[in-house]
Amino acid sequence: MKNTFGNNVAVTLFGESHGECIGAVIDGLAPGMCVDNDYIRHMLSLRRPQGDFSTPRVEKDDFKIVSGILNGKTTGTPLTILIPNENVQSAPYTDMARAARPSHADYTAEMKYHGFQDARGGGHFSGRLTAAVVAAGAICKQALEKKGITIGTRIKRCAKISDREWGELKADLDTLNQKTFATLDDAKAEEMKAAILDAKSNGDSVGGILETVVLGMPAGIGEPYFDTMESMLSHALFSIPALKGVEFGAGFSLCDMRGSESNDPMQAENGKVVTTTNHAGGICGGITNGMPLIFSTAIKPTPTIARAQNTVDLDTLTDTVLEARGRHDPAIVHRARVVQDAVTALGLCDMIATHLGTDALNA
Amino acid sequence: MKNTFGNNVAVTLFGESHGECIGAVIDGLAPGMCVDNDYIRHMLSLRRPQGDFSTPRVEKDDFKIVSGILNGKTTGTPLTILIPNENVQSAPYTDMARAARPSHADYTAEMKYHGFQDARGGGHFSGRLTAAVVAAGAICKQALEKKGITIGTRIKRCAKISDREWGELKADLDTLNQKTFATLDDAKAEEMKAAILDAKSNGDSVGGILETVVLGMPAGIGEPYFDTMESMLSHALFSIPALKGVEFGAGFSLCDMRGSESNDPMQAENGKVVTTTNHAGGICGGITNGMPLIFSTAIKPTPTIARAQNTVDLDTLTDTVLEARGRHDPAIVHRARVVQDAVTALGLCDMIATHLGTDALNA
Amino acid sequence: MKNTFGNNVAVTLFGESHGECIGAVIDGLAPGMCVDNDYIRHMLSLRRPQGDFSTPRVEKDDFKIVSGILNGKTTGTPLTILIPNENVQSAPYTDMARAARPSHADYTAEMKYHGFQDARGGGHFSGRLTAAVVAAGAICKQALEKKGITIGTRIKRCAKISDREWGELKADLDTLNQKTFATLDDAKAEEMKAAILDAKSNGDSVGGILETVVLGMPAGIGEPYFDTMESMLSHALFSIPALKGVEFGAGFSLCDMRGSESNDPMQAENGKVVTTTNHAGGICGGITNGMPLIFSTAIKPTPTIARAQNTVDLDTLTDTVLEARGRHDPAIVHRARVVQDAVTALGLCDMIATHLGTDALNA
Amino acid sequence: MKNTFGNNVAVTLFGESHGECIGAVIDGLAPGMCVDNDYIRHMLSLRRPQGDFSTPRVEKDDFKIVSGILNGKTTGTPLTILIPNENVQSAPYTDMARAARPSHADYTAEMKYHGFQDARGGGHFSGRLTAAVVAAGAICKQALEKKGITIGTRIKRCAKISDREWGELKADLDTLNQKTFATLDDAKAEEMKAAILDAKSNGDSVGGILETVVLGMPAGIGEPYFDTMESMLSHALFSIPALKGVEFGAGFSLCDMRGSESNDPMQAENGKVVTTTNHAGGICGGITNGMPLIFSTAIKPTPTIARAQNTVDLDTLTDTVLEARGRHDPAIVHRARVVQDAVTALGLCDMIATHLGTDALNA
Repeated sequence: MKNTFGNNVAVTLFGESHGECIGAVIDGLAPGMCVDNDYIRHMLSLRRPQGDFSTPRVEKDDFKIVSGILNGKTTGTPLTILIPNENVQSAPYTDMARAARPSHADYTAEMKYHGFQDARGGGHFSGRLTAAVVAAGAICKQALEKKGITIGTRIKRCAKISDREWGELKADLDTLNQKTFATLDDAKAEEMKAAILDAKSNGDSVGGILETVVLGMPAGIGEPYFDTMESMLSHALFSIPALKGVEFGAGFSLCDMRGSESNDPMQAENGKVVTTTNHAGGICGGITNGMPLIFSTAIKPTPTIARAQNTVDLDTLTDTVLEARGRHDPAIVHRARVVQDAVTALGLCDMIATHLGTDALNA
Repeated sequence: MKNTFGNNVAVTLFGESHGECIGAVIDGLAPGMCVDNDYIRHMLSLRRPQGDFSTPRVEKDDFKIVSGILNGKTTGTPLTILIPNENVQSAPYTDMARAARPSHADYTAEMKYHGFQDARGGGHFSGRLTAAVVAAGAICKQALEKKGITIGTRIKRCAKISDREWGELKADLDTLNQKTFATLDDAKAEEMKAAILDAKSNGDSVGGILETVVLGMPAGIGEPYFDTMESMLSHALFSIPALKGVEFGAGFSLCDMRGSESNDPMQAENGKVVTTTNHAGGICGGITNGMPLIFSTAIKPTPTIARAQNTVDLDTLTDTVLEARGRHDPAIVHRARVVQDAVTALGLCDMIATHLGTDALNA
Repeated sequence: MKNTFGNNVAVTLFGESHGECIGAVIDGLAPGMCVDNDYIRHMLSLRRPQGDFSTPRVEKDDFKIVSGILNGKTTGTPLTILIPNENVQSAPYTDMARAARPSHADYTAEMKYHGFQDARGGGHFSGRLTAAVVAAGAICKQALEKKGITIGTRIKRCAKISDREWGELKADLDTLNQKTFATLDDAKAEEMKAAILDAKSNGDSVGGILETVVLGMPAGIGEPYFDTMESMLSHALFSIPALKGVEFGAGFSLCDMRGSESNDPMQAENGKVVTTTNHAGGICGGITNGMPLIFSTAIKPTPTIARAQNTVDLDTLTDTVLEARGRHDPAIVHRARVVQDAVTALGLCDMIATHLGTDALNA
Repeated sequence: MKNTFGNNVAVTLFGESHGECIGAVIDGLAPGMCVDNDYIRHMLSLRRPQGDFSTPRVEKDDFKIVSGILNGKTTGTPLTILIPNENVQSAPYTDMARAARPSHADYTAEMKYHGFQDARGGGHFSGRLTAAVVAAGAICKQALEKKGITIGTRIKRCAKISDREWGELKADLDTLNQKTFATLDDAKAEEMKAAILDAKSNGDSVGGILETVVLGMPAGIGEPYFDTMESMLSHALFSIPALKGVEFGAGFSLCDMRGSESNDPMQAENGKVVTTTNHAGGICGGITNGMPLIFSTAIKPTPTIARAQNTVDLDTLTDTVLEARGRHDPAIVHRARVVQDAVTALGLCDMIATHLGTDALNA
């Protein structure tokens, strides 16, 4: 249903980049869940622009929760988060408003909304809206943590530079969740940052791959059709602007394996069933198997670049050349990873509530 | 909602591999749409096992439509397709029923359904159910064709062998839609088949990559959040058994590009707006831009193989070794491509009906 | 979503009166629920035409369950019920097919489906479809019974004759659930039947009021907005053909009370909270309070009568006179009460599953 | 889905009586619809407490629209309305917070939310939330008006006093839509007000019946199952606090008619099909027939009264006596009618968008 995701824990997103505020309503949260504003602030801070390799638009992200909470705990009724828009500079966008930015939503929004869309700063399509997603996801992520379910996302690859392999997963996740530029190997992070700055100095941008791991998910969550765990998570993930691919477990590399390689052998371990490899990414037949959930996503380079680009004028439908000037990010992969954590948390909470009921998130 | 997909054109799937029949209900079809049984039969025949590189289980797929149709046209009320199960051999499965097949849904189904699932032949998780999806999708695919929207899927890669690049898209799609083993290059198809047989002779299986192209989609279909075109299609696609990855346009290869490379320049062409490259796969901001929709999926090797595998017994939760004997496919990529066409058609019909209304599919 | 009702236990209805079969898919049932074919048959028999005061169309209602069941228990995957259509006489309908029957759906179906609807025997609008609803509801009703929740419906009023007041509710419900013409007072039933036959002998029909009581519902089920218990039940109830009104508790008679009369005083009783009256019908703020659920519905007289009626020809849109000849019921109130039980059971199962999770119906 | 209503035009409601603000998100509005703040203000003013026969709580209802609008027109993305809470007096409620108010949601909220609900002023259950529904509905109501669809509701009966019968419908509706106490007969309004004040002087409250008429609805809107026009409207209507019954057309009085009386004869009139009576209330088979939509609702007396009532203490679950002191309405029927207009408008917009597509509301 358009701007709402989730069946039993549902988030509704609203707002425009240069409007009064953006926000989200989360419905279906169990009553009595702790809402920790510091944790929300922490996750928002990780999403915020950082240093030279981000847009200079400084967003304070001063959120407030105007419903669904009492004495720091959820009431069980819809929880609404508002984040005011500040430091808005519409001018640079206005100048170029009618020259469609290539690989942005300018043209598709025009086709869908017949010119009535709020084009300022990308309007409803702005990455700015992901701040509200992050705030909503933060509440879910912390609730999952209390149930022993930990989510973390790292930059697996950026500007052709790859991070190291995973070590001990729980320790790695805990470390990642404190980092502003989330790689496992700090040296690789510095290389990536340098490559981002190099692209920036050329008026260009870069993309990357994000990888998420979830520990502690119980087995048995998901549906065979059509709400498979992969279906629900990918549905949410593909709402992240710039995300163009999702693969679970070994994903596309499974294509070149044989079954004898790709199958995950099973064994009993302390009364539990585990697999000795995890090419399936923790999901078989659309349902969790109790192993770590693992998936990767493709983040395209930021489409706004400081170079001349051939495009069309939306008013005249004639060719023109666009030279962008707004404040933009030479890379968003390091910011998008927080959004990926957030939508993962929202999706998992929804599926847990579907299987175990309304109160399960606080059980 | 569990076994139902779609908001305004919705398909509900039911049945088990060794039950009386499988089937699907499609609700929301426009009244007056032609339903061509030959076309449904054609698509079902493409999904059926073929030659030595498929399971010897011969399924006649004698479907019947028991509601929603009169004089060969849709009535506008729910259309129900039933496909009887025949040639069922439960014995080989029964023997091994309690040894969980690695990378199958045996263990996850046990966890979700607490032992009440129908495990015979994979039950509700069997690839057999995709026959009902194909029949439902065939009706949608043909309706789209009448509106000038053509869908086709090819085997891009299988057993480490890659097909050639696309030529003229419409001609390529029309050719693919007649092929039982859908590659653009017939010589590559023969190489792939040989590789499949080689795997089979080793008691093994192979995977591959499927690529779908859709021509003729109007611009402006899809939502920014959360029902993006990518979200809706991936939601449906990840219900295809064995599918573990989805990428739109250039997908994961975007990660190594710079924005100046990945952006699709735009130009006016005969009063229309086109892009001179299509790295976005026809979708920007979650909404179609009128260019060809393009996406690829990762199909893992068939998990059932004729080799000894370490696993656990579901009754005793102790280690055991499984030696599979049922009738199985050394590859399913060539069959899955028909399912991919089908769910694509279902998804696109749903999104068109959402934007343009109930009657649009027959307008 | 059109022909589907329910969020977590969802029923999808399909079929036409003179098609091959009608049926229903129920998705979201807990695994392991007992499915008792005799109970389904019992409920179907209560819905079947009876004696002179029903249509002479004899329907055997030989249902079969083709999915979602194994060894008499639900598997947890979609359960599909098929009921073949037999004893179909299309001729009488065909003659009058284009003269819209007043207060039937002939004209509205024409407007919605543009002439493509299956008009034979009322098609998808036929009361015949309620047999599938009853079969689906029977499974839910029996599951609720096992959880200590009893549903029963009586004919409160028919042809201006009123039944007696309720006595001991549980005993009354158990008695009602065995009756084919469900009044509390058997003498009143005979009076009603005589009045129905009198109407029939005049080529006319009668209506009535049905009253449902549910015992054993736990407190705390329902939502403040928009899925109140009343909202969900009325949503389902208004799908019953001929049903034109729903009131909960004292309903419309509350309008003439003062608050001091209509309020239900509360008191503690054996550690439970009860109300000493039940004008609210067991629901406050959209949520159950643990008291008996009570609601009444208005059933209009069967619109098909054996009298000349002014109407229009759907082809020519000119005035004409209709003289009906098909096989019809002079009253349906005694049959509709089984449908009312069924949709109530479906609605309650859905809301319980939403609150308590997928497995709750078999817990 | 809990606090969201509608499939294609969906409203999500949030807020608590004594929280920072209440509000609503409307998603699915066509781009380019005019949003007239004066019209919203007008409808909000009609809902506000009036004179001696309402609560003295004065709510300014200073709404603001923070998303989904640009230059006075809808953008097509979610429109969010916020209404700050002012003039909040929590004290009188706090005193009595743990003595459950009879026929209020205090006890059911406790059972559902396990004590975590915001009980101040009724919290999420407060009639206060209907202000947000009214603001959202005002936008829909005005959009329908532009399409030639007029909605109006009158107090048919209050405190045992009945309004006169309808005259010329369009003129009656236009007049009603300007009135703060909406009866057709002003003298009857004065009688009703006097009766309300009489109840108030006795520390008591009264109920009533509201009747809504919709002119100009096209034929063919609605579904046979399960989203009948009656189902969708009743689903929305039963979210109005205190509403306990809904009947369409002649409703419960159909029960005492014979088919020859209750059937609506049809005739051709200027190329259109009309019925010469309208006992069906404009709906046959769940689908509109182009005649005026008519339905009535039962509004129970305000449950908060200034009299001693037997109840239980929610902490101790022991008997206690409640003497209410907050600011309350001796009647809400005159205020609820604006809410009834609003939810009707929301429901109709949703069903029109489902049938005719996203852009239909601005076509």
